[in-house]
Amino acid sequence: MIYFDNAATTKISENVLEEMMPYLKENYGNASSIYSLGQKSRAAIENSRIKIAEILKIKPSEIYFTSSGSESDNWAIKDILNKKEKNHIISSRIEHPAVLNSLKYVESKGIDVTLLSVDEFGNVNLDELKNSINDKTGLISIMFANNEIGTVEPVYEISKIARENNILFHTDAVQAIGNVKFNLKDLDVDMMSISGHKLGAPKGIGILYIKDGTEINSFIHGGSQERDRRASTENVASIVGIARAISDASENIDENIEYTKDLRDYFLEKLLNVDGIILNGPIENRLPGNINISLKGVKPQTMVRYLDMFDICVSQGSACAAGSIEPSYVLSAIGRSEELALSMIRISLNHNNTKEECDFVFDKILRGMKKFKK
Amino acid sequence: MIYFDNAATTKISENVLEEMMPYLKENYGNASSIYSLGQKSRAAIENSRIKIAEILKIKPSEIYFTSSGSESDNWAIKDILNKKEKNHIISSRIEHPAVLNSLKYVESKGIDVTLLSVDEFGNVNLDELKNSINDKTGLISIMFANNEIGTVEPVYEISKIARENNILFHTDAVQAIGNVKFNLKDLDVDMMSISGHKLGAPKGIGILYIKDGTEINSFIHGGSQERDRRASTENVASIVGIARAISDASENIDENIEYTKDLRDYFLEKLLNVDGIILNGPIENRLPGNINISLKGVKPQTMVRYLDMFDICVSQGSACAAGSIEPSYVLSAIGRSEELALSMIRISLNHNNTKEECDFVFDKILRGMKKFKK
Ligand SMILES: Cc1ncc(COP(=O)(O)O)c(C=O)c1O
Ligand SMILES: Cc1ncc(COP(=O)(O)O)c(C=O)c1O
Repeated sequence: MIYFDNAATTKISENVLEEMMPYLKENYGNASSIYSLGQKSRAAIENSRIKIAEILKIKPSEIYFTSSGSESDNWAIKDILNKKEKNHIISSRIEHPAVLNSLKYVESKGIDVTLLSVDEFGNVNLDELKNSINDKTGLISIMFANNEIGTVEPVYEISKIARENNILFHTDAVQAIGNVKFNLKDLDVDMMSISGHKLGAPKGIGILYIKDGTEINSFIHGGSQERDRRASTENVASIVGIARAISDASENIDENIEYTKDLRDYFLEKLLNVDGIILNGPIENRLPGNINISLKGVKPQTMVRYLDMFDICVSQGSACAAGSIEPSYVLSAIGRSEELALSMIRISLNHNNTKEECDFVFDKILRGMKKFKK
Repeated sequence: MIYFDNAATTKISENVLEEMMPYLKENYGNASSIYSLGQKSRAAIENSRIKIAEILKIKPSEIYFTSSGSESDNWAIKDILNKKEKNHIISSRIEHPAVLNSLKYVESKGIDVTLLSVDEFGNVNLDELKNSINDKTGLISIMFANNEIGTVEPVYEISKIARENNILFHTDAVQAIGNVKFNLKDLDVDMMSISGHKLGAPKGIGILYIKDGTEINSFIHGGSQERDRRASTENVASIVGIARAISDASENIDENIEYTKDLRDYFLEKLLNVDGIILNGPIENRLPGNINISLKGVKPQTMVRYLDMFDICVSQGSACAAGSIEPSYVLSAIGRSEELALSMIRISLNHNNTKEECDFVFDKILRGMKKFKK
């Protein structure tokens, strides 16, 4: 099998699974229990928190384990504006649905929402951002990197603007972590969403970084887990897993990024030489593994199913919109025609992929183009 | 090790872990992807849904996978009353914190909440329930079984009262499932919360049953997972796990209940013959594995730590209140004095426990009583 859909989800890495196994087997204690078996779980959780905090250059107390990137996004958007004086959020048109639909929800509760437009490469316009700020603006939520077209947003500049205006800044880093080198000492944000399954940890584990001192309500109320801020019996095994995944990713980040970027550029050059294949999204400031192309005259579903016959996994659009025949809102936002938007496939490589795989897939895409092009 | 804290969490059963493993390894596809690897995940999820639905005698479309019992409780309480005419919820004083703190939250948003008192055995009073109903009552939320003292509430009668008054009924069945035989054809509820880790599935997976036709907002907004009602990339492995756990539990439910009840009664008889040991909670209508006793003059933490030296796991109060030195609100609600409430330990057996274990633990509790009793 050739797996070229790493932006949708990734295989749990062997390291990660190995480190999780004891917590799926003998170390099953509830971390809130005071006997040894429980305290083993407690220690595993707190060590995971410390490990991640060191990598991100934050305090362990600023990490909250959640069940997904989506939960983290929901929490950050829905529970932050608790004061009537601050009831305006600025975000962008190309955020993930977890952000966009949370924004719709808070809008229905009386919050004003401004969605910034993006340029042809998917970058938000910083002047538009500045102009959108008013006295009531309490939160800016702009993603670190886009899941469809791989645009890396100018989060450092946005952070600066947020700071100057005394506005909280949340960023969805689900696609960025492991693919962009950063730490939260240099990048000053108030909240950051992370998901485990995009970098070799299991599905169903996420993180919301919340800067110390940030006033935010709980999203899941109940027991006193996560320092009283996120109830539920802790998912110890997956917490251990996400910590290991982030740690592994950070250890090899320079090599991984370079390798993946070279591979992508190698593949992309071949693809863009083909008549009828058009790149969507930026050349610069793009996630290292992201390739988003329109195959003129070819239905993406047809191509994806054809490639599947050769055991090749690529995506028609982002995973959470699968089956949908609407044109991608991200491609619409960067100004792609409906025709191009409706012929888009996404290939997302990572460091586990190879040139040989690219060659093989290239060949099959070519064949598919010939076969299906109208 | 002797694990007598099955109400706090359970070991993942071997069957469950075995069935999960392929989804932690090679079958890692995103269930929203249309290629084969993704469709394997999709099939695993939908088959899990069907399996659970058959056991509970409901439709698969009525099952929503969540990340925990707490998330299910939050969802059921916070997102159900969307109409101004219905702004009153009736619940009880001994609900789990996931319900109680969700109620506090909705109260702060303008919902009226009535918390029913309970009798000395933890049963809600049905007359008080009827008298609390008014034109605005939109939801009754009463737990199926209490996590501390094991009281099984009269949910069938409550359901009848709810139906007669055209009020929605939610029940937290986290402690009941696997320990009480029921199906949702006979027990007519609108919503039911379930958690995996109490019956041999992993931590971090839950279910909210939502009866078809029930109007409820999403709790986690985002992608279109769970028929557009609960966003996040599906946690396939844990979904497969909870389905297997529920299936195994239902297959052996009669034997398990009888075995566990006999074991508990055997143990309880010994315990209650000891001077200074007092039972908390009911004799009848009690969870089969639940033993909640006060050890007069002994600090529970001291006893729990002492037993831990012999590799015995029992709980001082419920897991989510661990470390807390407040008397249990459940024991206060059934009228226990502060002294008794502050000397309570909970032992929760299941079908994996044995008489020999009970004998061993009994001996150690006796020794502990002698050692520590003031
Ligand atoms: C009655 C009851 N409800 C809800 C919960 C919460 O479940 P979870 O730990 O899966 O969030 C628990 C256990 O913790 C419980 O005993
Ligand atoms: C940018 C972005 N945000 C949020 C999410 C949601 O993460 P999860 O699937 O863990 O809920 C995803 C992926 O699905 C994503 O790509």
